[in-house]
Amino acid sequence: MDEKTFYLPKGYRYAGVNCGIKPGSKKLDFALVVSERPATAAGVYTQNLNCGAPVVYDRERTPGRGFVVVATDSGCANACTGKVGLFNARKMAEYAGEAVGATGDQALVMSTGVIGVQLPMKAIAIGAERAAAKLGTSYHDFEKAATAIQTTDTRLKVVSRQATLPGGATIRLAAMCKGAAMIGPNMATMLVTIVTDAALDPEDAQTALRGAVDDTFNCISVEGHTSTSDTCILLANGAADPTPLKGDSLKFFSNILLDMCQELAPMIPNDGEGVTHLVTIDVTGAPDRASAKLLAQTVANDALVKTAICGADPNWGRVVSATGRCGVPYDPAKVSLKINGYLLYENGVPQSFNKEEVSNSIRSNRNVSVELFFQEGDGKIRFWTSDLTAEYVHLNADYTT
Amino acid sequence: MDEKTFYLPKGYRYAGVNCGIKPGSKKLDFALVVSERPATAAGVYTQNLNCGAPVVYDRERTPGRGFVVVATDSGCANACTGKVGLFNARKMAEYAGEAVGATGDQALVMSTGVIGVQLPMKAIAIGAERAAAKLGTSYHDFEKAATAIQTTDTRLKVVSRQATLPGGATIRLAAMCKGAAMIGPNMATMLVTIVTDAALDPEDAQTALRGAVDDTFNCISVEGHTSTSDTCILLANGAADPTPLKGDSLKFFSNILLDMCQELAPMIPNDGEGVTHLVTIDVTGAPDRASAKLLAQTVANDALVKTAICGADPNWGRVVSATGRCGVPYDPAKVSLKINGYLLYENGVPQSFNKEEVSNSIRSNRNVSVELFFQEGDGKIRFWTSDLTAEYVHLNADYTT
Repeated sequence: MDEKTFYLPKGYRYAGVNCGIKPGSKKLDFALVVSERPATAAGVYTQNLNCGAPVVYDRERTPGRGFVVVATDSGCANACTGKVGLFNARKMAEYAGEAVGATGDQALVMSTGVIGVQLPMKAIAIGAERAAAKLGTSYHDFEKAATAIQTTDTRLKVVSRQATLPGGATIRLAAMCKGAAMIGPNMATMLVTIVTDAALDPEDAQTALRGAVDDTFNCISVEGHTSTSDTCILLANGAADPTPLKGDSLKFFSNILLDMCQELAPMIPNDGEGVTHLVTIDVTGAPDRASAKLLAQTVANDALVKTAICGADPNWGRVVSATGRCGVPYDPAKVSLKINGYLLYENGVPQSFNKEEVSNSIRSNRNVSVELFFQEGDGKIRFWTSDLTAEYVHLNADYTT
Repeated sequence: MDEKTFYLPKGYRYAGVNCGIKPGSKKLDFALVVSERPATAAGVYTQNLNCGAPVVYDRERTPGRGFVVVATDSGCANACTGKVGLFNARKMAEYAGEAVGATGDQALVMSTGVIGVQLPMKAIAIGAERAAAKLGTSYHDFEKAATAIQTTDTRLKVVSRQATLPGGATIRLAAMCKGAAMIGPNMATMLVTIVTDAALDPEDAQTALRGAVDDTFNCISVEGHTSTSDTCILLANGAADPTPLKGDSLKFFSNILLDMCQELAPMIPNDGEGVTHLVTIDVTGAPDRASAKLLAQTVANDALVKTAICGADPNWGRVVSATGRCGVPYDPAKVSLKINGYLLYENGVPQSFNKEEVSNSIRSNRNVSVELFFQEGDGKIRFWTSDLTAEYVHLNADYTT
């Protein structure tokens, strides 16, 4: 990331610190994102029924106004933790709010890490204190916060945009996210904090955010497991211009937000645990958008497809077979498939192709393209996923013990 | 398998031979199961839309009467092969029928192996010829046929039963199956041939078979991919007693069939590619049976659950989280979970437990028990799955190339 071309919205401060969530670890594990003026907040959350306590806390409060801080810990998800977990999430919001001279009601919280373990509240208290003392406005501060929310991620995941609205005001958006496993799309699919210095009314912020998430964070997967903790929060503080965006300006903003999320979302499967390929799946001609998504998602989460791509094996039958098992009705005699541009299957008939050449193409490109063409309707979608490697298994066979 | 306690139904002959489906391989790859008298046949098939040509062929003909032979090849699935594939499946039935002095209409066919490759018809012709010349009635012949239908399987999967019906007649059932990957339940999930010397009317045979499959082969998975080729066929030739079973006898038979399939079905995930644990998932107290199945299936196919078990990691949060992402409504505060009998989560609250002890219990037992308790209704199910190992990835990353 080149910090000179990274656009930081006005009126925010950031910090990432170590507070010892995992005893003995020096890793940054607590982040604060603070707005200098009360901001509108919108949120999109996991649909997992066993959602984490922070999700319960935030969901009750967004969309809304008057927020000044988002506090995030990594190392403990505070999920499947019962009433104690809910109490601790509220406490974490209080600690964060008080640390920056506000209240718990002005704070939102996010937690990620192991499920079923109670938050170490002493560490959280220390984290809020330490982070509040280190808040800064530089790209370096932003990067530290973005690092502190990560778990098994190996790459920093941050993006930004700057744009001049039709009305003349210049606004900025910036986002940080984490995610490398337990990624399966059903609403949001990881932790994301987006900040902007545009002003937005709560319902408009919520609509813009949901629209962007549907085509981006809801179109990615690593292994298809919708986590307990998926949260995507947008803060809009109006530091660039306090007038809430409406009409064309709002539409313009929504498009920039979508464009930014399109850059950010694939970074997650591209950093999926043990990943060696980022796979982009384009489905066209499906009966409708929901069908297109189900087709793409079934291919994206298929262990046989993902292992074949890991092995640079052009075993295309697994892709076609996967589309046939998901329940979407279509005519099998009107399906075509390309991998990395090579036409392997056309209108239900296998095409002859040079196996060696296609295999080399997969092996030598980290980005693999899978295109599926149906002739049923206008439904289309783009979906991103990781391949499945032995390293993913090694990483996940021994995560808590 | 102890051949002395293996009960072979009367009036069947078996053979397994090599016919060179994979050029240069000496592996047994073609099997015939022949009934000496015309038999009733029932079949349950994959619901994958891209079903193999043999599935199309058999589905049109079962349930029905007058069948004398089931021919199976391994190495080529004859799926996603268009009109040529359908022509070849019909030809394969003809070759098999003619080789045993019957017609193509009296034959059923099954194929398993790589998708998208046309059947090598010369090899199939040779296979039918060679197998017909080797047909025999011994357990050894049965075992050869059962071996010839396998692909990446490492264990023989055969079972049998003998029982005396309420009316006094003694009948026998025997079954062979293959399957080690592309196993995801939606109707049948692999190739199974069941033979009995009881007599059954076609509709009764179909009802009994569907009932047995629903609680057995439809309750297993390896990676959750419903294959193009899943087929389960039951032949009933009446060699023990030519009177079709009805009433209590039919019910008795159906129970034996179910019991036998309950022994056979878990052999598939127990021999899943690279597997080190067979996981039995028991769900009770779900809203209904369909919900219980969806809950169990979501846990069974979850890469994070499967890798945790591979690593003997008692990371139970992944199991609970998986149940929450499948769409079944339940009260998260009324869920309990046991692994290998250890109570890890009770009514939504994490229980303290000795991690070392539970981990050792998983490590030292090939059979792992996962019990999930809900308090929503009477829905319950038993489901079997494999763990997910690095070896599975190695095996599947390089299957065709």
